[in-house]
Amino acid sequence: MRTIITACLFICCAYLKVSAQELQKDSTIIRSIFDEALSKGKAYADLRSLCKDVGARLSGSAQAQMAVEWSEQKFKQYGFDNVQLQPIMVPHWERGTKEVAWYKTKNGDMVPLRILALGGSIGTNGLLRAEVVEFKSLDDLRKSDEKTVKGKIVFLNQPMNPNDIVTFKAYGGCYAIRGEGAVEGARLGAVAVVIRSLALPQDDFPHTGSMHYDDSVPKIPAAALSTNACNLLSEALTTGKLELILEMDCKDYPDVPSFNVMAEITGSEFPDKIITIGGHLDSWDAGEGAHDDGAGVIHCMEALRILKQLKIRPRHTIRVVFFMNEENGNRGGQGYAQWVKEKGEKHVAAMESDRGGFSPRGFDCDGSESYLKIIQQYAQLLKPYGIHHFEKGYGGVDIGPLKKSFEGIPLFGFVPDSQRYFDFHHAESDVFESVNKRELELGCASVAAFVYLLDKSLD
Amino acid sequence: MRTIITACLFICCAYLKVSAQELQKDSTIIRSIFDEALSKGKAYADLRSLCKDVGARLSGSAQAQMAVEWSEQKFKQYGFDNVQLQPIMVPHWERGTKEVAWYKTKNGDMVPLRILALGGSIGTNGLLRAEVVEFKSLDDLRKSDEKTVKGKIVFLNQPMNPNDIVTFKAYGGCYAIRGEGAVEGARLGAVAVVIRSLALPQDDFPHTGSMHYDDSVPKIPAAALSTNACNLLSEALTTGKLELILEMDCKDYPDVPSFNVMAEITGSEFPDKIITIGGHLDSWDAGEGAHDDGAGVIHCMEALRILKQLKIRPRHTIRVVFFMNEENGNRGGQGYAQWVKEKGEKHVAAMESDRGGFSPRGFDCDGSESYLKIIQQYAQLLKPYGIHHFEKGYGGVDIGPLKKSFEGIPLFGFVPDSQRYFDFHHAESDVFESVNKRELELGCASVAAFVYLLDKSLD
Repeated sequence: MRTIITACLFICCAYLKVSAQELQKDSTIIRSIFDEALSKGKAYADLRSLCKDVGARLSGSAQAQMAVEWSEQKFKQYGFDNVQLQPIMVPHWERGTKEVAWYKTKNGDMVPLRILALGGSIGTNGLLRAEVVEFKSLDDLRKSDEKTVKGKIVFLNQPMNPNDIVTFKAYGGCYAIRGEGAVEGARLGAVAVVIRSLALPQDDFPHTGSMHYDDSVPKIPAAALSTNACNLLSEALTTGKLELILEMDCKDYPDVPSFNVMAEITGSEFPDKIITIGGHLDSWDAGEGAHDDGAGVIHCMEALRILKQLKIRPRHTIRVVFFMNEENGNRGGQGYAQWVKEKGEKHVAAMESDRGGFSPRGFDCDGSESYLKIIQQYAQLLKPYGIHHFEKGYGGVDIGPLKKSFEGIPLFGFVPDSQRYFDFHHAESDVFESVNKRELELGCASVAAFVYLLDKSLD
Repeated sequence: MRTIITACLFICCAYLKVSAQELQKDSTIIRSIFDEALSKGKAYADLRSLCKDVGARLSGSAQAQMAVEWSEQKFKQYGFDNVQLQPIMVPHWERGTKEVAWYKTKNGDMVPLRILALGGSIGTNGLLRAEVVEFKSLDDLRKSDEKTVKGKIVFLNQPMNPNDIVTFKAYGGCYAIRGEGAVEGARLGAVAVVIRSLALPQDDFPHTGSMHYDDSVPKIPAAALSTNACNLLSEALTTGKLELILEMDCKDYPDVPSFNVMAEITGSEFPDKIITIGGHLDSWDAGEGAHDDGAGVIHCMEALRILKQLKIRPRHTIRVVFFMNEENGNRGGQGYAQWVKEKGEKHVAAMESDRGGFSPRGFDCDGSESYLKIIQQYAQLLKPYGIHHFEKGYGGVDIGPLKKSFEGIPLFGFVPDSQRYFDFHHAESDVFESVNKRELELGCASVAAFVYLLDKSLD
């Protein structure tokens, strides 16, 4: 109980530091930010253009290069300062043209299953046929033995836990079947691995995503099945042994050059102190990368546009960064952190949006208690906009490496409602039409308001 | 500032009244409620059945009668106590089979416009052709004169304000063009009125809804145009005068018998004190009434099922009521309030869900400050579920009349996220597929948890 009382009193005292006049001014500015986003916003049209004119944009693809050019042009069109491209090398993996799976019933019928190769997987080198063996978790596979697994296709049918209220927690609980499944299967002699899509709905969309190999064991093909396909296959397996037939011709290619794309509003008081805000420009090749992470990059670009449009000149330099290659390498995030350190830049904070274009809930703080207390002071000002979450949490994959470059730098993660995210994540369904205009716009305004307040709060 | 400090301290003190042990018990029960809803819930399947097996269910229609029978059967199937039907008489209006509109361009081309007759409108009695005159608001029409309006079709093109964060506020701001448009138009001699749909997206769905006539002026036909159709027509009107052509054969019929449907869990301590929870069973005839108010009735039925399934025996009798005729008459809500008063029942509180099946945000309180303070005590317990809103506000149309029957009765309204509601409200797009499974389930659990806590809090 004491903690609750102390927390309440702290929040009150923190408010008291800000004068009523200053609070009123902030409140008026935040209202103008939301009005601009909702009445005159460019976010929805910009996201449509990124999704429809460019499309899916996996690192190393022609579309990823087009996305870089699209971003540079947008930044220039909006009149931002210091538009620049940071060269990086990125992985280049292609899905190929063949991607099919069936199981064979006892009476010889072929039942097709919807699959997507996992990003980075090798192909099957023609038809691959083998008996399938199901495990309900990665741990169950690890506890198994060569006798059970050798020569077979491992089927990792571990569902996300629907009871986790924040769906990212359920995702975290299953993440390893995608990342480690092929290695653990190969360790016991499996010839391929198929996993249950990391998704909460029961539907026909397979969800891809990154996986990795380990030099200590052979590389085997890896793919995700739709949740419906998993249910079907699992049910069929209760009747006895089954053969699974796979063909995929996905393939790794040598690394290719690409870019992080960035632009700024130069700070009025501390032009050499930088607050980075960003998301990732690359996406998986299924769908259009609308929620992941088209929404995130648009949130940040539109936030900068709104500040500029409303002539809200920040004290620090606000830099928007569209990171390349978050999905399968994080070369953009790592390269950026290294580059800015080498240049001797001063970075005071960073914020990332990479959790979809849904209705805003708040902000996570990955930093010391004092930074958490700073953002908790914004609660009353942002309450009229449905923003209520200011907690310890995660910043994001792209800004994560900044921690190594700048000791003690606070990282913030924008937190929209998480309930629908894993309906679309890494799947064909992650298209422009899955994003609601108002939800997207409210996200942009929330990021702009947060950046406005953060810029005021920091030295 | 003092208010904030006092409020914070009050909340702390209120918590202190509850022992840590009791809080832990409540927390465990609430967790079990959410687990049941998310892992073993029946809500999504039940909503599918209501939307697909029954469908749209406008008062007086065959589908509305089927919905009554569907509900009675469901209540019995779930083993609820005291399943009963309360007979009421309801309006009976039918859309008919003709519903078309065009405008004629200067060069004689016919441009079709998507319309839906407003509920209660008379038909056009064949083709109705007249010059159209646009007004940007109902006030503008009221300030106009017979010379401008007489013999013409009034086009009320007043958009909902996108800057209102809670979309119901924007709806309230435009509500009168639908309710009063025909009367105000007729007062100045208009021959028909077409309104801009009360919707936030720019799309092709007209949104219907109730309107009324006034005996002092002639009845004229009234319809809603899709927002896209309004933009098109308004743009065309900048080039000069235009003729609008309408045909609708909608019609009023005599009132027919129908029912409120209800069931209970009998209270262990106060069986004769009733907490009513409900939504409305009827819907408009476009779409399937999935969000409005399929989600609401399912929220309440599933909440009762969860309490029963988990053997959480309430102290008061919890009665779920599926009200008939909220959309065009509120005969169900009025009839219920009168009926329970006549029976001499004691009612201690009521809660309504009629704002869609979206991610839960909290609860409004339409009652004295003391009731608001009671529900604000739930904040810490419900925070892990993203529930943060406990404010003075609106209960709902159906439970509203209980205020007259029971002085001082507190009414509560379930508050889901409002951003997408007016994409679907009263339109063809309000179908089962527009409801997200997890969002619906979280709503059910929120209602169940709220009812559990409310039942504990009240005498």
